[in-house]
Amino acid sequence: MTKIVIVGGVAGGMSAATRLRRLMEDAEIVVLEKGPYVSFANCGLPYYVSGEISEREDLIVQSPQALQARFSLDVRPEHEVVGIQPSAKTVTVKNGDRSFTECYDYLILSPGAKPFIPPIDGLKDATNVFSLRNVPDVDRIMDYVTTKKPQTATVIGAGFIGLEMAENLRKRGLDVTIVEKAPHVLPPLDEEMAAYVTAELEKNQVRVITSQSATAFANQGQEIVLEDGSTLESDLTILSVGVQPENTLAKEAGIELGLRGGILVDENYQTNQEGIYAVGDAIVVKQQITGADALISLASPANRQGRQVADVIAGLPRKNKGSIGTAIVRVFDLTAASTGLSERAAKAAGYEVQVVHVSGKSHAGYYPGAKDLVLKLVFDKETGKIFGAQGIGAEGVDKRLDILATAIKGELTIFDLPELEFTYAPPFGSAKDPVNMLGYAAMNLAEGLSDSVQWYELNDELAAGKILLDVRNPGELAKNGQFPNAVNIPLDDLRCRLVELDPQKEYIITCHSGLRSYLGERILKQAGFNVRNLDGAFALYSTVKKEEIKHV
Amino acid sequence: MTKIVIVGGVAGGMSAATRLRRLMEDAEIVVLEKGPYVSFANCGLPYYVSGEISEREDLIVQSPQALQARFSLDVRPEHEVVGIQPSAKTVTVKNGDRSFTECYDYLILSPGAKPFIPPIDGLKDATNVFSLRNVPDVDRIMDYVTTKKPQTATVIGAGFIGLEMAENLRKRGLDVTIVEKAPHVLPPLDEEMAAYVTAELEKNQVRVITSQSATAFANQGQEIVLEDGSTLESDLTILSVGVQPENTLAKEAGIELGLRGGILVDENYQTNQEGIYAVGDAIVVKQQITGADALISLASPANRQGRQVADVIAGLPRKNKGSIGTAIVRVFDLTAASTGLSERAAKAAGYEVQVVHVSGKSHAGYYPGAKDLVLKLVFDKETGKIFGAQGIGAEGVDKRLDILATAIKGELTIFDLPELEFTYAPPFGSAKDPVNMLGYAAMNLAEGLSDSVQWYELNDELAAGKILLDVRNPGELAKNGQFPNAVNIPLDDLRCRLVELDPQKEYIITCHSGLRSYLGERILKQAGFNVRNLDGAFALYSTVKKEEIKHV
Repeated sequence: MTKIVIVGGVAGGMSAATRLRRLMEDAEIVVLEKGPYVSFANCGLPYYVSGEISEREDLIVQSPQALQARFSLDVRPEHEVVGIQPSAKTVTVKNGDRSFTECYDYLILSPGAKPFIPPIDGLKDATNVFSLRNVPDVDRIMDYVTTKKPQTATVIGAGFIGLEMAENLRKRGLDVTIVEKAPHVLPPLDEEMAAYVTAELEKNQVRVITSQSATAFANQGQEIVLEDGSTLESDLTILSVGVQPENTLAKEAGIELGLRGGILVDENYQTNQEGIYAVGDAIVVKQQITGADALISLASPANRQGRQVADVIAGLPRKNKGSIGTAIVRVFDLTAASTGLSERAAKAAGYEVQVVHVSGKSHAGYYPGAKDLVLKLVFDKETGKIFGAQGIGAEGVDKRLDILATAIKGELTIFDLPELEFTYAPPFGSAKDPVNMLGYAAMNLAEGLSDSVQWYELNDELAAGKILLDVRNPGELAKNGQFPNAVNIPLDDLRCRLVELDPQKEYIITCHSGLRSYLGERILKQAGFNVRNLDGAFALYSTVKKEEIKHV
Repeated sequence: MTKIVIVGGVAGGMSAATRLRRLMEDAEIVVLEKGPYVSFANCGLPYYVSGEISEREDLIVQSPQALQARFSLDVRPEHEVVGIQPSAKTVTVKNGDRSFTECYDYLILSPGAKPFIPPIDGLKDATNVFSLRNVPDVDRIMDYVTTKKPQTATVIGAGFIGLEMAENLRKRGLDVTIVEKAPHVLPPLDEEMAAYVTAELEKNQVRVITSQSATAFANQGQEIVLEDGSTLESDLTILSVGVQPENTLAKEAGIELGLRGGILVDENYQTNQEGIYAVGDAIVVKQQITGADALISLASPANRQGRQVADVIAGLPRKNKGSIGTAIVRVFDLTAASTGLSERAAKAAGYEVQVVHVSGKSHAGYYPGAKDLVLKLVFDKETGKIFGAQGIGAEGVDKRLDILATAIKGELTIFDLPELEFTYAPPFGSAKDPVNMLGYAAMNLAEGLSDSVQWYELNDELAAGKILLDVRNPGELAKNGQFPNAVNIPLDDLRCRLVELDPQKEYIITCHSGLRSYLGERILKQAGFNVRNLDGAFALYSTVKKEEIKHV
C-alpha cells in the first residue's frame, strides 16, 4: 500500500490529503500538523478579535475525527516533524515528549510561512507583543485583550493582515495606531491608491504613521520607540511585518532552497529530493506575469497547489503554471484590492509602463445605493498587455478585480476590455461597466487620442511652465477645494472661451474625476493645443496630496 | 463640414454621437429621436413602477440642452425620420405637423427594437394592456396605476423585463400573475435553473402559469382567456413577450434585412447602402460562440456598437466582433443570470454538450452572511470549450457570471478556471471560489474521474434498473424530504457498508448539494462499482421536480 505523509494540515496540506483520498482510495495518508488544529480559517482570525466572527468554533473548519470518518485520513495534530531522512524515506516525529519515526513513499511538505519577527531591542522582555498566524496566536491575543483590557494598540506593519487587525481592534474600542516602514500603507498597492485607505483609517480614528519602524520596546513593551526617536504608548502591539517560508525542516534535509529561503520545486512540485514534494506559502513560485521567482503567501494558490500535487502523485498530468497574486482587504467601509503587478513593481521589473485611473459607480447611478469606485490599470501601451490592476471603493471592487484577474490570467489585452459583456441590470452594474471604461481609457492612450500626466508628475510639469486648466464648475471649487495654481474654465464654456488660452503654452487639464477633463482635452487637441489630461483628476490628486489643496 | 445624422437618441445612437464629437470636433452632428426623451434609463423603468427609483427625473439621464452645451450636439426629440433617400443622402423628418428634409454625409440608424405585440383577440378594445419600452410607456402605466388603482395584474411573458415588472407591481401591492408560453419562466435559462426563480416568485405570492399564452382579451381587457380555455381576471396587463427590430424605415429605404427582420451590417456596421450605418438592438450580429446570426437586445452591446461606429466613421480601425449575450435579473431576494449559450441553445446549435452544476457560498462560510448560490456550466468535454454559464443566488451571482463571461470572451477553457486567482478575504469570497470549483468539477468529468446523470435523465435511468443511492444523513431526509426510491447510506458509513451494495447493479449517487455524492462516487468507483453522480443532487432535483419529493 502506498503511504503518503503530509507535513502541515492547513490549506495546501489538507487540499492535498483530501484530493489524494479521492484519487487513491487504498493509499495510507497521514497528515502531521505541529499545531493543535488542522484546516482552520486562517484568514478569519482577525474577525474573531472584534467579534464579527463570534464563535471560536467557526474558525475550526474540520476536526481530525471528521476527516477520518469522511476521508479515512490519519490526521495528527500536535505532531511536529523534526527531521527528514530522504534516503531512508522516513521522518522523525515529535508528539509531546514522545519521538518516533514514520516511513513514507511520498512526502508532501506544506509547512507554510511564519511571521517575520524583526530583531527589535527589548522584544524579548515585552509581554504585550503578538503576531497572528494561527488559532493559538489569536487565543493569546484574545486572552490578553479580555484579561488586561488594553486601551491602546499599535499595529506594526500595514499590509493586509495588519490593516485587518487595526480595523478589528478599533471595532473593539481600542485606540489604534499603525506604524508602517514603507512610505504608505498597503505596500502592495501604489501610493495614490493606498491614500484612500489612509483616509478611511483616519476617518475611523486610526492613527497612521508611515516611513517609520519600531527600533525598540521599552517598559516591557508598553512603550515603542520609533526610528525618529519618538515614542508610542501601547498596551497591546501586533507585529505584522510580513512572513517568511517555514524552511528549517527542508533545509536540514538537504532540500534546495531559493529566493528568500523558499523551497525550490519543479513544475510538478517535486523538490530536489526524490519522493519529496512541497506546496503552499513555503515554496518559490513563478510570478506568472514576469516569469521571475516569487514568494506568494495567499490561500488561493496554496489550495490549488495542494490539489495539483495530489494529481501529480496520482499520475494525472498537472503543472504549476505560477501565480499572479490577487489580494483584497476590507478597511472599515472601504475595500482595497490588487491583482498582478503594481505600477512600482512593473517598473522595477523593467517594463515600459502606462497607467490609467478610472472612477465609476458600483452600479447604475440612477438606481439607489450606487457607490463610487476607482480602478487603476497598469499596462503596456504598445502591446496592450495588462500587468496589473488595483481598485478602491465601498462596493463592487471585488467583482472588478476578479474580472481583471481573469483577464490577466487569460492574457487579454486592454483592447479586449471594452468587448467584455457583463451582467447589467440597475442593481448590479452599468451598461458601460467601469472595467469597460478602463479599457476605453487605456485604448485612448494607446491610440494617441489622449495623453496623460500622473499625479506625481504634476508639480514638475507646472514648474516647467505648463498651465493647469481646471474645467470644474465654480461651485465645485468652493465646495471641494482648489489646486493652488489653476486656470478655471468650466467645461461647458470651453468652446466659447478658447480665445482665453495661449496656443504657445502647454496645458494640463483636470476636472473632478477625469471624465470632463478628457472631453476638454479632446476639444483642445482638435483645436491644435498641446494638452495632457491629469489622470485621476482632482479626486485622486486631492486624496494623495491633500496638503496642497486650497480651501477658500 | 461633415454632417452626421443619427436616427435614435438612446444607447447606441447617443454613444455614437458623443464619441463622434470627441473624434470630430468640427462635424455637424444631428440626433433625431422620435420620442420625447433621449438617453433615458431604459433598464430602470420597471423600478420606477414600484417607487424603488422614486424620482421620474432620475430616468432622464441627459437633456438636449446639456448635450448641446457639453458636446455641441443638435439633439431633437419628437423628430421622427419617416423616409431615407440613400441616393440623395437625405432623410425626411416629421416633427409634429411639420415635415422637412435633412441631408447627411453619414447616416447612423439606431432605431432599437419595439415590443412584439401578438395578434390577440380583443386587444384593440382592451384599455388596460400596456407594454414597456420607454418613458411614455411607463408614464401611461403609472397614470393607470395611480388613477385606476388596479388590484390584480397579469404579466404576459416571463423574460427579464416581464419578471422585473412582476416584482415591481407586486411590491406596489398588486396581486400578480405571470403567464409564459414556454414551459418555464426566464426562457433564456435552462429549466432547472429557472425553477429557483419560480420558487422565489411563488414565495412572494406571484402566481406563475407556464406553457400557456393569452388567446383573447374580453371585457375591455378585464378578462384574459388562456389557451386551455381558463380565464384570468386582470385589472392591469403588461405584454412583455419579446421585441423585434424597428426596421420599417430601413426596409423602405432598400436596406437589406436579415434574421427576423434585423438590419444587416458588415463588421464595420455599414449597411448595403453607402454612407448608411446601423447599430443597436435593430441589427443582426454574430453570436460570438456559434458564429451564427443573432438578434441580441442588450444595452451593453448597443453602447459598444455606438462607440465603434463612431470610430469607424472617424477612420479608426474597429470591427464588430459580435456578442455572447450576458443578462441578469433580480427577482425579489434572488438573482438569476446567464451568459453565452444555455444547455438547450448549445444542443440546438449542434454541439456535443456536457453540463455541470456546482453549489457554493457567496463568500467564506465561516464569515457571517454567506449566501447560497448555484452555478451551471455548459461546455465541451473534449476540448474544454465553454459555451455558457448560468447562476442563481441571493448574492455574488453577478460577480461569478461576469468572471465567466470574461472567460468565454477570452476563450478560456474549463482547464483554466481552477487557475483563476480571485480576491479572497472572508467578506468577499472563498479560497476556492465557486468559479474555481466549477472548473474542478468540469475537469473531473472531462478526465473521467466522475460521470454524471442530469435531473431530467434520472427517472429513465431508474426505470432501466439503476439504483439511486442517497448518502445524506437520516436527519436531512426527515427535514428536507426524500427521493421516492432511494437506498440510504450516510457517506461517512459508506466504506464500512459497501457489502450492502450489489456489484452487479449500476448506481446513481446523490446527497444534498453534490459534494458528498461526488466523494461517495469516488469511493464506489475505486471499489469497482459502476456509478454516476446525480448532478446538482437533491437540492437541484427537489427544486425542479418538487412534486416527486416525499415528505414523511
